[in-house]
Amino acid sequence: MIETPYLLFLGDAPDMLAAKVAIGIKDWRPENAVAQFRLPGCGADLGLADMTLAEAKAAGAKTLVIGVANRGGVISAAWKEVLIEALEMGYDLASGLHNLLRDEGDLVAAAQTHGGTLHDVRVPTVGYPIANGVKRTGKRCLAIGTDCSVGKMYTALSIDAEMQTRGMKSTFRATGQTGILITGHGVPLDAVIADFMAGAVEYLTPDNDDDHWDHIEGQGSLFHVSYSGVTMALVHGGQPDALILCHEPTREHMRGLPGYDLPTLERLRDTALPLAQVANPGCQVVGISVNTQHLSEDEAVTYLAEVEARMGLPAVDPFRHGAGRLVDALDAI
Amino acid sequence: MIETPYLLFLGDAPDMLAAKVAIGIKDWRPENAVAQFRLPGCGADLGLADMTLAEAKAAGAKTLVIGVANRGGVISAAWKEVLIEALEMGYDLASGLHNLLRDEGDLVAAAQTHGGTLHDVRVPTVGYPIANGVKRTGKRCLAIGTDCSVGKMYTALSIDAEMQTRGMKSTFRATGQTGILITGHGVPLDAVIADFMAGAVEYLTPDNDDDHWDHIEGQGSLFHVSYSGVTMALVHGGQPDALILCHEPTREHMRGLPGYDLPTLERLRDTALPLAQVANPGCQVVGISVNTQHLSEDEAVTYLAEVEARMGLPAVDPFRHGAGRLVDALDAI
Repeated sequence: MIETPYLLFLGDAPDMLAAKVAIGIKDWRPENAVAQFRLPGCGADLGLADMTLAEAKAAGAKTLVIGVANRGGVISAAWKEVLIEALEMGYDLASGLHNLLRDEGDLVAAAQTHGGTLHDVRVPTVGYPIANGVKRTGKRCLAIGTDCSVGKMYTALSIDAEMQTRGMKSTFRATGQTGILITGHGVPLDAVIADFMAGAVEYLTPDNDDDHWDHIEGQGSLFHVSYSGVTMALVHGGQPDALILCHEPTREHMRGLPGYDLPTLERLRDTALPLAQVANPGCQVVGISVNTQHLSEDEAVTYLAEVEARMGLPAVDPFRHGAGRLVDALDAI
Repeated sequence: MIETPYLLFLGDAPDMLAAKVAIGIKDWRPENAVAQFRLPGCGADLGLADMTLAEAKAAGAKTLVIGVANRGGVISAAWKEVLIEALEMGYDLASGLHNLLRDEGDLVAAAQTHGGTLHDVRVPTVGYPIANGVKRTGKRCLAIGTDCSVGKMYTALSIDAEMQTRGMKSTFRATGQTGILITGHGVPLDAVIADFMAGAVEYLTPDNDDDHWDHIEGQGSLFHVSYSGVTMALVHGGQPDALILCHEPTREHMRGLPGYDLPTLERLRDTALPLAQVANPGCQVVGISVNTQHLSEDEAVTYLAEVEARMGLPAVDPFRHGAGRLVDALDAI
């Protein structure tokens, strides 16, 4: 559990793309984003107040979150100076960088001296159990994709936000680095030992109120040969009551796998649903989320109408048109 | 790679069941089993010569393999004495125990002093890549089960042995602790980090001659919610050309999962084959291996005939009746 709220460290990010994690936090948990901290030359701007470490501390910030990718995989001297000063002032640090905070001796020393915590969200910190398959109370929704990176996290966050707005009981359950930094907790599923993957998902989504929805962040795809095992653990460990199919219609082959075609939405449905019903016989496919960012508004509307007619399920781009119809569909089961 | 041949350490195993790993080595790689080493009170006997460490060393043994489970998860003082003496004499040690050799300070010290290697086969030693899905040359067969522990390893070893007898090119590829100790190498798949599972299987079964068969040891089951992610990584990382369906007909529920029914062989076929065809469109289901140990000979023959007629595929118990018909089926594709 990472202490909130955050001061978002953008460092010397050359552009907004490099600040993807910080943008996610600001978009999805604005109440966690006290301010931004930028170094000279920073080309990203979240539109938040720029604060010094002391100002943000006074405004309540507990953790300095590295919300930016580092260049060349090295934590630079310019960054170090800020990170160490933050620890000296009583901040914790949180990072999803490939090179770990805990591998930097000076950060470890400063954290020990000042009682701060270094959160490397790529590294599991819990000894997860083997999954036991016991049915849990509460409801669960899993976004499942024709491919990797088709908008599964965004879909789950959108649905969670819409349920919150409606006053429904709802929690987003992060399974990846960005999701964990956005919400402050979760399971870095791709870094869990194989035997414990499904158990980690059970741990992440425990018993809950009968009318509570967990929205489990999807990973990979059952059709992506590099990561399908991780997806399978989500399908079985998650025990979803509802699946949302996610798709990006302009992709020409599976991400990183030239020669591998994307499955159709029908094939995804017919593959995922029987597998999900092994763990939860009542599971249903309730809707379709399409990432239409590479389509014009007209193309998007036409494509969504075609998919909706073909599949007999609500088909929306939650970023473009809101997640309301997906929430309606979930609320009806 | 564990150096062969072995001296098989049976310790104070109370009975044959406790010596399962040693029995596997003796049954499947008798050329690797120089002799057995037993402590007073040992209730297991492989029918091998009993040798001292010195005698087995003179007979060529390179590695002392702990072929037995330890009681209470503790490496006892009586074992330690033998293990340290073996290191002093130039043996390597290999173990699939849950508690690791490398966590025992006195064994580590003795190994360092005498230049020996401690092989804990539960721990991956290779930095496996992310799977790239590129089609590999050579042929691959994967045994896939309705449940865990239905005879997948035994099936793969039987088919490999029959192919060797016929002079065909064939390799058994171990993915679990017992298989690794039997053959001296492999990938402990259940201990690999999630993101690298499929890549580890690709690493295990590289390009080979067009007429060479890899027999990949299966793990878990697509229908076992605790371990299905590991099975999925085998299906996609293995790129099998052929699937053998494995089943144990007397089991009342999925192993360790009361309330979870076993799938039918039809359902296993219809689930596994389309998933396997994602990575290898030419994949076929070629036969069925039934573990009939809990059936009488008459019951077994009747059951196998019924399955064979129903499924239209050769159905055999390779332990009871040999793997010949499965090899015939593989050789025909």
